[in-house]
Amino acid sequence: MPVIRVEMFAGRTPDQKRALAKALTEAFVAAVGGAPQSVQIILQDVEKSDWATGGVLASDRPAPTGS
Amino acid sequence: MPVIRVEMFAGRTPDQKRALAKALTEAFVAAVGGAPQSVQIILQDVEKSDWATGGVLASDRPAPTGS
Amino acid sequence: MPVIRVEMFAGRTPDQKRALAKALTEAFVAAVGGAPQSVQIILQDVEKSDWATGGVLASDRPAPTGS
Amino acid sequence: MPVIRVEMFAGRTPDQKRALAKALTEAFVAAVGGAPQSVQIILQDVEKSDWATGGVLASDRPAPTGS
Amino acid sequence: MPVIRVEMFAGRTPDQKRALAKALTEAFVAAVGGAPQSVQIILQDVEKSDWATGGVLASDRPAPTGS
Amino acid sequence: MPVIRVEMFAGRTPDQKRALAKALTEAFVAAVGGAPQSVQIILQDVEKSDWATGGVLASDRPAPTGS
Repeated sequence: MPVIRVEMFAGRTPDQKRALAKALTEAFVAAVGGAPQSVQIILQDVEKSDWATGGVLASDRPAPTGS
Repeated sequence: MPVIRVEMFAGRTPDQKRALAKALTEAFVAAVGGAPQSVQIILQDVEKSDWATGGVLASDRPAPTGS
Repeated sequence: MPVIRVEMFAGRTPDQKRALAKALTEAFVAAVGGAPQSVQIILQDVEKSDWATGGVLASDRPAPTGS
Repeated sequence: MPVIRVEMFAGRTPDQKRALAKALTEAFVAAVGGAPQSVQIILQDVEKSDWATGGVLASDRPAPTGS
Repeated sequence: MPVIRVEMFAGRTPDQKRALAKALTEAFVAAVGGAPQSVQIILQDVEKSDWATGGVLASDRPAPTGS
Repeated sequence: MPVIRVEMFAGRTPDQKRALAKALTEAFVAAVGGAPQSVQIILQDVEKSDWATGGVLASDRPAPTGS
């Protein structure tokens, strides 16, 4: 029944999303218990033009790093 | 003033969304009271490639069922 | 699989929450289809001191109305 | 470390989003303190066909006003 | 920069939450890459009286199972 | 109609929250336009034991800084 929502930069491949869903579900069950079938994951792509740190959109930064 | 946010698989028709917004608003007012005008509904389409249950993306399942 | 999240003022009784969960689930199924068992509802109480409209906290308004 | 999430009608220009991210970050720091670099802003466009008030989608209203 | 938000039933111990934050962060980095320092996790406890499946609050079910 | 949601560490005073709601609303209207009355702000306190960066809960860090 847990719902795990991930907001991250757009651009991940289907294989990365597939691996992420699997890894987060396993991480939840390993740390907290419960049935994997009860874990729901929702992935939300965020464009760099919609995400700001320090008041500056990521799309305006010279060299995006990380997530 | 309540905000009702619905995450569901993409693919609903405009008429289904129209009916959903109306039905959820009426359900809220019937159960809790308040003015319909104060109820806000935000619908969020989620692609099957962004939604996993049991660690498996819905887009990787053989036969999607339900929502 | 839909997830319906409701943010509303704190103070509803258990019976109101029970009725709300039932009514929203029925509203979803009636409008969009799917199995009731697949509908998840998460209710989130928000204190009036944490909710502002027009830049003014609801707890600072003379006569709260609705929601 | 605060995360500020804005749901608003789609259609804002890049310059409006740029100004919004800057203004919200400055507003947070001015009111609450902390380092601007710790403030994250996520902007979420919502289509008028996905946002209802009073049970009616904004896309079905004759004259949309405001946000 | 990813933000991972977990909604789960209240009642986890501090050690479970500690393990969960660590495991989810490692899962994200392993699957998608990026720096662990960029991963933010927000845990949100939900009371059983605020979470419904199939229109019935978890607090009204005879035998809660799983998350 | 915009909804602005702020997740931040718990512990702000009522006056800080009051100032924050006002400042964010003014920032939105200045940057994007619209009527202040249409802006809704929801403040969400997050305990340090529920917020992790780099896989470590903020409550486990020696010297919390910022947000």
